[in-house]
Amino acid sequence: MTTPRLSLNQRLRKSPFEERSHVGATLASVYNHVVLPSVYASLEEDYWHLREHVQIWDVACQVQVEVQGPDALALMEYLTPRDLSQIVPGQCVYAPLIDADAGIVNDPIILCLAPDRFWLSISDSDVLLWVKGLATGAGFNVRVFDPDVFPVSIQGPKSDLLLSRLIDTPTEDIRRFRFIEAKIADTDLIIARTGWSGQGGFEFYLAESAKGVDLWDTIVGAATDLNLRSGCPNLIDRIETGLLSHGNDMTFSNNPIEAGLDRFFKLGKDSDYLGRQALEEIASAGPSQRMVRIMVPGSGITNPREIYPMTVSGSEQLGSVTSICHSPRMRCHVGFAYAPADSCSPGTRITISTPAGDAEGQIADEHWRVDASDHSVG
Amino acid sequence: MTTPRLSLNQRLRKSPFEERSHVGATLASVYNHVVLPSVYASLEEDYWHLREHVQIWDVACQVQVEVQGPDALALMEYLTPRDLSQIVPGQCVYAPLIDADAGIVNDPIILCLAPDRFWLSISDSDVLLWVKGLATGAGFNVRVFDPDVFPVSIQGPKSDLLLSRLIDTPTEDIRRFRFIEAKIADTDLIIARTGWSGQGGFEFYLAESAKGVDLWDTIVGAATDLNLRSGCPNLIDRIETGLLSHGNDMTFSNNPIEAGLDRFFKLGKDSDYLGRQALEEIASAGPSQRMVRIMVPGSGITNPREIYPMTVSGSEQLGSVTSICHSPRMRCHVGFAYAPADSCSPGTRITISTPAGDAEGQIADEHWRVDASDHSVG
Repeated sequence: MTTPRLSLNQRLRKSPFEERSHVGATLASVYNHVVLPSVYASLEEDYWHLREHVQIWDVACQVQVEVQGPDALALMEYLTPRDLSQIVPGQCVYAPLIDADAGIVNDPIILCLAPDRFWLSISDSDVLLWVKGLATGAGFNVRVFDPDVFPVSIQGPKSDLLLSRLIDTPTEDIRRFRFIEAKIADTDLIIARTGWSGQGGFEFYLAESAKGVDLWDTIVGAATDLNLRSGCPNLIDRIETGLLSHGNDMTFSNNPIEAGLDRFFKLGKDSDYLGRQALEEIASAGPSQRMVRIMVPGSGITNPREIYPMTVSGSEQLGSVTSICHSPRMRCHVGFAYAPADSCSPGTRITISTPAGDAEGQIADEHWRVDASDHSVG
Repeated sequence: MTTPRLSLNQRLRKSPFEERSHVGATLASVYNHVVLPSVYASLEEDYWHLREHVQIWDVACQVQVEVQGPDALALMEYLTPRDLSQIVPGQCVYAPLIDADAGIVNDPIILCLAPDRFWLSISDSDVLLWVKGLATGAGFNVRVFDPDVFPVSIQGPKSDLLLSRLIDTPTEDIRRFRFIEAKIADTDLIIARTGWSGQGGFEFYLAESAKGVDLWDTIVGAATDLNLRSGCPNLIDRIETGLLSHGNDMTFSNNPIEAGLDRFFKLGKDSDYLGRQALEEIASAGPSQRMVRIMVPGSGITNPREIYPMTVSGSEQLGSVTSICHSPRMRCHVGFAYAPADSCSPGTRITISTPAGDAEGQIADEHWRVDASDHSVG
């Protein structure tokens, strides 16, 4: 069944780049009340292009929540189990936000603009309301607001070359998860070496919406010989890269330990944070399920509209597939799933139930290997 | 420019009715992370049909936030300037939620299920995060959660006839803004005489998602001689009826006094509420602008993607058009706008700037009259 076309009104916030980015987009979604293109040529064609060239992405949907004031750092620490005590201006930190039950509210990138000023560059939920609600209720001395700052991104192996034509700072001076302030097309920008692909790239944070189209055209104009195309976060690339999507691979019902985000925080951080007790209890009991990568031979299984149930060899407990697609490079399906914690090691046999029937596969490790001794895939 | 088609994944929550409701929908939006059809045949054809017959609407996007516990009523009172002290089980109350600055966070219908149990049936923002954040921060003794309850609606003049074939209770026993519990297709439902049209109708709140398609088919099956069609909130009908849309006609930047929602609350209510001081200050100084209805002769002006600026005769201050469409019944454009408070009386001349050029019109009263002595329109 073909889906309806998107209707636009003011309730869907206007991206500063949409006059350009909507051209050629065949599929799109809505993310943080902003349109997010999801396919241009085709999922696979977009994927190969992203791996080989450079793409410009309208990621205005990664809206910012600004927290400013004397209690800004204390509030940021309160929001996440990640230790932010060493954060410095110019740094970007990926940090799961959790509630009192350790459920994942959102998983933003936190940008430290100043010791008392932060942006949360968010995934798809109204973090503004969450942070404002908590700050208001608990009496933190901060201002929490939406600063009208929208990112555009360049991603792909030619991103460094492209950026080097646009700014004076040598691009190698911008370390991973760091940002600089720079000017392009006479517009002040924050430029971070971050982005939602595995192919490298940068995100440009634009505060002056009216300059969005000019900025876009300037970037495109500097890439005439680079085979640049409009693109967007690509399902195949993001699964291969291991990037979890909030709303797909984790929700309020998941805690960051089972979602495998524990590498982004330490349990015993000094500052107090919401959900500490719940999280420590989960850590001490051990989670009942764990996020794993799965590989399933064949092709034709599409990403689930609802989770696909998964049986796991050696466990009574059911698992669930949260994202899956066909990888043209690995020539099989790759995906994310929650597997019972007692049976989640690489190589474990699985069966997933999809509308097209059952399919068998295996749990893989972080390098897409189903057996530690097998280096043939990945 | 044609817009992209909607791509669906788990991040967009699945409506229990979408297998039926997406069939024939030509345009759709996303609302509370759920797909909301916005046009079937055409805006105008849908409009005439809604006025004459009965439609079934998938409004699963009006998701619920449940507040339960000893402090439930106190928290509900804290969220809104509307006096809820007299609310009784079975009652639905429209109530703007505001923040500390009196900005409108959302404008839900509050359903009182029990003295200590409420649903907020919300417009498009994550009220769950707002209410959870406030309750957590301020220490209200409540549980705030998403109960997985989704509404389907019947709207139009034949709604009473249709409902009378589905339940035993005489439909006239269901008063406006009241609900009953009843069973249809062996499924427990809450049925309220509410809905987002001016043509009358009911909303059925379904808790068992798996029964959505059966419920839909049962409703449709009872209407074979009623010319029932799939429908959705209709832009023309909602403007003619005076129904404001959060995100279009009011946002965080608007207070409920300028938005004309003051008829839904009294300033001096006994219980304390967030934003009281700010709201009282606005009331005492008088708002700088007021929501008005406007009429603009001609046809061809489309609803704004961004607000249209509006100049108002007799005022230096600019106004802004938030919603507008052509009314085939009134044979002119009808819309909502913020007008300077010093120049907002019916009959005032206005000029609006649209991408298609400037257009002149007048401010109208609540009955779409531009002059109190003129009864020819409306």
